[in-house]
Amino acid sequence: MANQKQNIILIGAGNLASHLALALTDTGYTISQIYSRTQQSAETLANTIGCDFTTRIEAIKNDADIFIFAIKDSILSDFLIKLNVKNKFFVHTAGSVPLDIFKDFTNDYGVFYPMQTFSKNKSVEFKHIPIFTEASTISNLSKLDVIAQKLSNKVVNLDSDKRKMLHVAAVFSSNFTNHMYAIAEQILCDAGLSFNLMLPLIEEVADKVKTLAPKDAQTGPAMRYDEDIINKHLDLLNTLQEEKEIYKLISKNIHRKNN
Amino acid sequence: MANQKQNIILIGAGNLASHLALALTDTGYTISQIYSRTQQSAETLANTIGCDFTTRIEAIKNDADIFIFAIKDSILSDFLIKLNVKNKFFVHTAGSVPLDIFKDFTNDYGVFYPMQTFSKNKSVEFKHIPIFTEASTISNLSKLDVIAQKLSNKVVNLDSDKRKMLHVAAVFSSNFTNHMYAIAEQILCDAGLSFNLMLPLIEEVADKVKTLAPKDAQTGPAMRYDEDIINKHLDLLNTLQEEKEIYKLISKNIHRKNN
Repeated sequence: MANQKQNIILIGAGNLASHLALALTDTGYTISQIYSRTQQSAETLANTIGCDFTTRIEAIKNDADIFIFAIKDSILSDFLIKLNVKNKFFVHTAGSVPLDIFKDFTNDYGVFYPMQTFSKNKSVEFKHIPIFTEASTISNLSKLDVIAQKLSNKVVNLDSDKRKMLHVAAVFSSNFTNHMYAIAEQILCDAGLSFNLMLPLIEEVADKVKTLAPKDAQTGPAMRYDEDIINKHLDLLNTLQEEKEIYKLISKNIHRKNN
Repeated sequence: MANQKQNIILIGAGNLASHLALALTDTGYTISQIYSRTQQSAETLANTIGCDFTTRIEAIKNDADIFIFAIKDSILSDFLIKLNVKNKFFVHTAGSVPLDIFKDFTNDYGVFYPMQTFSKNKSVEFKHIPIFTEASTISNLSKLDVIAQKLSNKVVNLDSDKRKMLHVAAVFSSNFTNHMYAIAEQILCDAGLSFNLMLPLIEEVADKVKTLAPKDAQTGPAMRYDEDIINKHLDLLNTLQEEKEIYKLISKNIHRKNN
């Protein structure tokens, strides 16, 4: 298949880059070079998928059909200025970076945002990850959609403004949810209890919102506004001041939205 | 089996009471009467399991082996004062209510806390719900453990102080997590996007902590302390002031704990 002969250079070797590299090569795409400023990350990933790597921006090759940037959002602008390669098909993978970040460097560019939380030691099923695409031209969008559809069952074209909102929502659903687990773990650890006790509850909470809207799925002392329990809990959190503030603020917000 | 001939009176017909009533009758226990101050709740649940019901405290029967209280934590004390029944085996189902709430009313009492989030329109697999038990005597504890073990694969004896901490942790893992989903839903709704887009992410976040500690599973802008993205997100939340405060506070806490 012609599309699968496309040659990709991947900029980045972090969590997202690593999972994406595996998914792309598993699907038949060729990654010819990996860049990372960290030698170990670049080498490890390059060895895993069998390709060249470099840690020097100036050694990034010029001959690829697509350059996929999966580096920290905050360094992408500076990176593009330093990069010698210009006028190629540039694609980034970030939720909150606008499409037009590339506009001074090439006419062909796009966004390929796989919305998932990627950790090094946890494999993911790419087929279930929604991928959000956007591009500078219809032809470029079509090229990205072909790749996205090979990787995932759920490909959605989305403009930069909506993608930004999607990313904020993802931070709440993912990073902040995980942090609620982390606070629970800390409380349990202080009480000499195992975090594993929480797993059936965590699973059910995540399962419930497949069939009930989160607002309708809510239970607990904040929802009932049981001030007696809330105050007891705040007392118990006296040694964890920031967590106590988080408890207060979220309880207030739950109560306000459900009444 | 002698144990299954025990006769239970259930005080309460809310979400927890309803799910517990079904699990108990499915396991062979007999519930002889249900009390709720709401006629409709009492009648619906009583009809479902086929037993008597009442909405009047003074009509609660005296002849049961166990009285299980699954009513709001905040009204239990007053309820016990008004109840004519005394010196029976009293059991409550609450995470944050101490065992000795019963001590002025009987010598036989206990706690039977199934740690789960129960909603009316969502069935649960009771076998997977950890049940935490505590009682006034070893003999009473043993009676509760027999019931708990018939309902669940995970029965843990836990004193009131540790159960309180467990309950605070459960509020974070369950109610607050669900509220993170609710905020995401609101943001997506305002942007004209479907909450269903979040489901693969939500599932993965819940799945990850089965094998990684929550702290090690964390990703995202707060973890990296990407101030540029964090500030963009705070701008996007300008019309949602409380949610903006929640975003700030949780991001700060994530950053502090990971550095």
